[in-house]
Amino acid sequence: MTTVRIAGADLTRFGSVPDRTGRDLFAEAALGAREAAGVPRGDFDELTYGNFMGELAERQGHQGPIMAEAAGLDCPATRYEEACASAGAAVRAAISAIRSGRADVVLAGGMERMTNLETEDTTEYLAIAADELYEVRAGMTFPGAYALMQRAYVEEFGGEREDFAHVAVKNHDHALPNEYAQYRSAITVDDHLDAPMISDPVGLYDSCPITDGAAALVLCSDEYAEEHALDAPVAITGSGQGGDKMALQDRKHLNRTPATERAAEEAYADAGITPDDVAAVEVHDCFTVAEVLALESLGFYEPGTAVSAAREGETTKEGALPVNLSGGLKAKGHPVGATGASQVVEMHRLLTGEHPNSEYVDGTVGVTHNAGGTVASAVVHVLEVVA
Amino acid sequence: MTTVRIAGADLTRFGSVPDRTGRDLFAEAALGAREAAGVPRGDFDELTYGNFMGELAERQGHQGPIMAEAAGLDCPATRYEEACASAGAAVRAAISAIRSGRADVVLAGGMERMTNLETEDTTEYLAIAADELYEVRAGMTFPGAYALMQRAYVEEFGGEREDFAHVAVKNHDHALPNEYAQYRSAITVDDHLDAPMISDPVGLYDSCPITDGAAALVLCSDEYAEEHALDAPVAITGSGQGGDKMALQDRKHLNRTPATERAAEEAYADAGITPDDVAAVEVHDCFTVAEVLALESLGFYEPGTAVSAAREGETTKEGALPVNLSGGLKAKGHPVGATGASQVVEMHRLLTGEHPNSEYVDGTVGVTHNAGGTVASAVVHVLEVVA
Repeated sequence: MTTVRIAGADLTRFGSVPDRTGRDLFAEAALGAREAAGVPRGDFDELTYGNFMGELAERQGHQGPIMAEAAGLDCPATRYEEACASAGAAVRAAISAIRSGRADVVLAGGMERMTNLETEDTTEYLAIAADELYEVRAGMTFPGAYALMQRAYVEEFGGEREDFAHVAVKNHDHALPNEYAQYRSAITVDDHLDAPMISDPVGLYDSCPITDGAAALVLCSDEYAEEHALDAPVAITGSGQGGDKMALQDRKHLNRTPATERAAEEAYADAGITPDDVAAVEVHDCFTVAEVLALESLGFYEPGTAVSAAREGETTKEGALPVNLSGGLKAKGHPVGATGASQVVEMHRLLTGEHPNSEYVDGTVGVTHNAGGTVASAVVHVLEVVA
Repeated sequence: MTTVRIAGADLTRFGSVPDRTGRDLFAEAALGAREAAGVPRGDFDELTYGNFMGELAERQGHQGPIMAEAAGLDCPATRYEEACASAGAAVRAAISAIRSGRADVVLAGGMERMTNLETEDTTEYLAIAADELYEVRAGMTFPGAYALMQRAYVEEFGGEREDFAHVAVKNHDHALPNEYAQYRSAITVDDHLDAPMISDPVGLYDSCPITDGAAALVLCSDEYAEEHALDAPVAITGSGQGGDKMALQDRKHLNRTPATERAAEEAYADAGITPDDVAAVEVHDCFTVAEVLALESLGFYEPGTAVSAAREGETTKEGALPVNLSGGLKAKGHPVGATGASQVVEMHRLLTGEHPNSEYVDGTVGVTHNAGGTVASAVVHVLEVVA
């Protein structure tokens, strides 16, 4: 089976740009990725595109063809929606298209526009990623759901709010030199502990922000890269996806994320790696507890042991396993439908030496982890420097 | 590359069931398909699921995990959104997953719930399949868009409203024995011509109805079917997808659908067939002119010549090429996110002899055609009896 190469990658600066349309944002990322790849537009076989709430935020469904046109392409385009893992699903679909032989070159990416809305609308719209019938009608919002997960975690395994604060402090620190990050400001543990409580024990600084942004990747087959002498040293060698019950009430544990475990298992087997091979990881830290759960489900820590990893410095840029060197969702920002692709873009930059934090990556293998809802969906990718 | 087999297929009776939830509808189709296939639930590798406007109609995004659970499955699930071609995209994704080697068995399907809404809301929500910026803000609705396309067609090629009436009359006739059809009532050309005008020249009987429904298919690799001695005589041997500019204003012609041409070209090449090999076809007749355009773009008629095909009896059940033996979107109904899968389910029934109209299929090759928006997206599949 062909290896899938990353021929080009780009993203917009994440943040609040309420006056820019979705197509404008995606065009910027897509044209940047196309320019980096140097692949002629006629060679693109398809666009795989992630978006979560365009129907509500822009009254625009069927965004595939719009975004193909925005990207300057004349090819089939499909939108993938997997809540906050939409772009992870789009990247995975691109890999599948190339591996199945139906495509040589695919543009994969995603976009979300969120800051044009009132915050209360955004909260309501984000809630459609949870179970409308069994959770949303009961008043559940995402900070509330992750608060339940954090409570269940602490009850079984222990951990202080300060442990979770260190996750946020670390990710803000990592974002400082990242020109694409929404927040390039250091925070302290005291800032975290003094910040308003959102849904006890989840505070303001446990939560990722609301963000506009887009990300795009030019993916191609090994054969195409070779034939066209592309500069594409990084391959996506593993892809995995996992699912779980949608509603928290139907899960056995609130403090485990088996969808991530399954996605990781598949992706690692696909790439032929183990967690020990991984030099850096970008995980889906929509809330600080989500980073803790992800690190355990990805096999980097035993259940109940990742909570103090940031405090101990193990996951900081100078730690044994740097986590979210981009700044993560917490500080880089979380334009929902773009996040999964942006993680791959950032890991690509980290592995190729183009990222300001590349110096902290001691190795050639990186992993990205994108989750949807309360991790009812998870997508994991393995990136490797292969040339 | 492995051939993709249809191991089981089912759909709900299309119609108006506003009190049934989406998960209820999809469960019925999925469990029917699973029962027909006899594949153990643990063998399903993933669910590929089409839905168009669940965010607006049910305030529910992230439907993949919900529908996996409704189907009794514990596997990754992704939602595909390609407007009215959402389920076609989901079926195509399942094929790609199997061909890439990542899956042996996939549940592919779709669902839409529409009649729980007020008609004016449905019209507004359907419009998100058009370009919000350049079409919807200008007041465009889908009957209006297809009226423009019909006007452009008639201006260049001729044709009477009565020609289009014959398309509707034929499809209502085909639906008469179909127990899954929304409308099992004959109409006459006079009924059509006397019916209210919606958007001149598109009248009430040129338009498909608003429908609730779901459809599901159990797809598997050739090897899996053989190993488990499944009764799966029909294979999907070709898959193609095409794209076009989203907004009508950006197209060269309003009376051509190049997205369908491209999808057909890819699907026929994939299957190694030509239009001459095809014994029956299910096309996306959201409006009567859409059937005419589809038949031309699929290569069954030269541009400008399909308009009188129904009147001449060429596409009726006893004609040379029976079109929409299911009743089509016009009479069988159009639950948007389910339609593409339901066409494959119906073609499967037609080819296996299980359909009341199977007797009119003189051959072993069938084609399905699913379109999104004003055919900014199109997905074509080729089905063949192979055993």
